[in-house]
Amino acid sequence: MVVGFHLIVDFHTVSTSILMTVRPMRKILEEGVRRGNLTKISSSYHQFQPYGVSGIILLAESHLSVHTFPESGLVTMDVYSCGEDAEERVKNTVNYILGEMGGVVSLWKEVERG
Amino acid sequence: MVVGFHLIVDFHTVSTSILMTVRPMRKILEEGVRRGNLTKISSSYHQFQPYGVSGIILLAESHLSVHTFPESGLVTMDVYSCGEDAEERVKNTVNYILGEMGGVVSLWKEVERG
Repeated sequence: MVVGFHLIVDFHTVSTSILMTVRPMRKILEEGVRRGNLTKISSSYHQFQPYGVSGIILLAESHLSVHTFPESGLVTMDVYSCGEDAEERVKNTVNYILGEMGGVVSLWKEVERG
Repeated sequence: MVVGFHLIVDFHTVSTSILMTVRPMRKILEEGVRRGNLTKISSSYHQFQPYGVSGIILLAESHLSVHTFPESGLVTMDVYSCGEDAEERVKNTVNYILGEMGGVVSLWKEVERG
């Protein structure tokens, strides 16, 4: 029984300054959740020293996670949604984030969960 | 450049009562993090009505997520660690949780991130 759609994406960006601190990342991720018509329950961010961000958003539909590696311009992200239109909602979120960050994808893995 | 190891696991259990509320799930998951020698930064849980739990633990090494579906005994889980011994730490965490919950695995997907 398939319960949801999970998309795992790694990408690189030349906009490494975005990846360094929580504030710009939070703005893009939370807008991505809205663009995908997903429902935020809570979110948690961590600032690594000297730079780097982890962010997790707990969704009514499942979750979104991002971990940044500014030293190499790398972002590892995953977005997982259960419920109706899961694939469309996940892809709308991921594509918005990729567009905002100028991401060049190195890994794109789609997993049906359940 | 590989930065981490991400394990995506779906499993079923007959111990469906464990899946219904936050308290027993939190205990198993947070002990699993300790058994894997992973480092919790923060955690967030959500109680669905009438039953079902989502839990996310933000780790210094990346994250752990679990979503339960008590109506079918299904749990969808993923554990992702960067840093040294990532694969061993992730597998120790996952295997502890599977053991505690009597999980029968239906999906086991290992992804090298980065």
